[in-house]
Amino acid sequence: MAKGFEDLISKVNSCSTKTVSVAVAQDDAVLEAVRAAKEQNIANAILVGDEDKIKEVAASINMDLTGFEIIDEKDNYQAALKAVSLVHDGKADMYMKGLIDTKSFLKSILDKEVGLRNNRPLSHVCVFEVEGIDRLLFLTDVAFMTYPTLEDKVSIIENTVEVCHACGIANPKVAPLAAVEVVNPKMPVTVDAAELTKMNEEGKITGCIVDGPLSMDLAIDPQAAIHKGTTDRKIVGDADVLLFPDIHAGNITYKTLVHTANVKNGNIITGTKAPVILTSRSDDFQTKVNSIALGSVVAEAMKNN
Amino acid sequence: MAKGFEDLISKVNSCSTKTVSVAVAQDDAVLEAVRAAKEQNIANAILVGDEDKIKEVAASINMDLTGFEIIDEKDNYQAALKAVSLVHDGKADMYMKGLIDTKSFLKSILDKEVGLRNNRPLSHVCVFEVEGIDRLLFLTDVAFMTYPTLEDKVSIIENTVEVCHACGIANPKVAPLAAVEVVNPKMPVTVDAAELTKMNEEGKITGCIVDGPLSMDLAIDPQAAIHKGTTDRKIVGDADVLLFPDIHAGNITYKTLVHTANVKNGNIITGTKAPVILTSRSDDFQTKVNSIALGSVVAEAMKNN
Repeated sequence: MAKGFEDLISKVNSCSTKTVSVAVAQDDAVLEAVRAAKEQNIANAILVGDEDKIKEVAASINMDLTGFEIIDEKDNYQAALKAVSLVHDGKADMYMKGLIDTKSFLKSILDKEVGLRNNRPLSHVCVFEVEGIDRLLFLTDVAFMTYPTLEDKVSIIENTVEVCHACGIANPKVAPLAAVEVVNPKMPVTVDAAELTKMNEEGKITGCIVDGPLSMDLAIDPQAAIHKGTTDRKIVGDADVLLFPDIHAGNITYKTLVHTANVKNGNIITGTKAPVILTSRSDDFQTKVNSIALGSVVAEAMKNN
Repeated sequence: MAKGFEDLISKVNSCSTKTVSVAVAQDDAVLEAVRAAKEQNIANAILVGDEDKIKEVAASINMDLTGFEIIDEKDNYQAALKAVSLVHDGKADMYMKGLIDTKSFLKSILDKEVGLRNNRPLSHVCVFEVEGIDRLLFLTDVAFMTYPTLEDKVSIIENTVEVCHACGIANPKVAPLAAVEVVNPKMPVTVDAAELTKMNEEGKITGCIVDGPLSMDLAIDPQAAIHKGTTDRKIVGDADVLLFPDIHAGNITYKTLVHTANVKNGNIITGTKAPVILTSRSDDFQTKVNSIALGSVVAEAMKNN
């Protein structure tokens, strides 16, 4: 079971090396990340994009392109389609965004011919290692699904539990978060949370333990649970997955962690046939490398299923 | 300008000593806080409640009751009414919850005869000192208003700006938070945020600078603003007030800060004729003391206005 990114990278190193296919690879930050991923034996990369520009950007960061396959395609959207089709055809294991706008990148994922659609809604998971917490935390959805319905939340849980399993967490604890830990009909989020818990008890959501609504303290801090007398619940400050009410709550919490706590993190898009890495320019170098490691672990698990 | 709780407590010590009136004072954690507040010259206290029980609880924590006025009232709600009326009549400067349920305590605040209603909606502000951030952050509303309307948000800003002014922040920067920093009609929160910004520009919200929607990173981290190229905005990682879309986003963020970052905090209810201290049992000792200090600073400012 991976308790941090060091464990996760060790886990990756023990598997066959995966390959990431990059859409529009002429991006310095993305090239720096794939270089580090290759050096650390996390993943190889196929660089799809404008070959001249890729070489130019690589030179600007003193990157040796030996060992990287380059596919020359000057049109950005065509490059994305070529890059995603490599994953679709099994020639690469995961798909990563380069210097292309998010909308076009997502469109390529959803392409009916060469895309990675899996008949499931896509969702985003951000995995955190937080100082003082002895396990990985899986935050979802902080970036992709805006206002998930109950049905969407079921899909988000299924997508995220698959990632937990890939990280070696056999029966993750899922906390549908709210401001409070009891159902309040005036707060629809708490009603959804209780419904998800019931669906889990009835075997409609499997492979995990769902217990909500829960406040953040009761989800992540065992001492808070002892203090508030909620130690008879299924989650006692030991949640793995933090399911947010909506993108605002999720995104604000995610950025609070990044900018105030001592953390490492990585993130992928799930619900697809293969992991998709969509880091933003504001993510730092290590986050991009961690995201490739996370993608590799998930790709390995998908291969074995 | 108070940059942290040490500054805030110095500020309190330089004013005339304030008095807190405690409703149903037979609570060990509350008595420990008022003892410390008295010892640190932050505030005196009048203890309203069951005198026998107050003495018993005081003995259990080795607390010397010399110098504390005790008003004996065995009925909890009557004790609350007596305690709040002391503030209403100017015999005390702020009102604090003891061993009484929150609903009854709030009812006493709203009592037409002896309460503290001010024809404004009540809101909650949680003030944070966060390691790595060189100013106080005022989070609102993380505990009281559930789903604020645009009109409610105006009131929350007004209530909170008053607290900022009391802390010496003459023209606080208010960031209406969202997952994104641009208006998206599919995200009503961003539309509200833009509307609040416009109302501020038009002079309908005064004493502060409002700039929203803003994502959390752009609100608190100047480096993120530089990185994302938003340095031409009114807020460049230097927000004082963080206005949350709803109680879930606010409460989850608040508890994330408390349980993962290195922080000090204190909180009060505002929108009343005098500050109200409603800490929960899960707040630690220092948070309760900090809340009394915050209440004292606000009471001093109210006296001078």
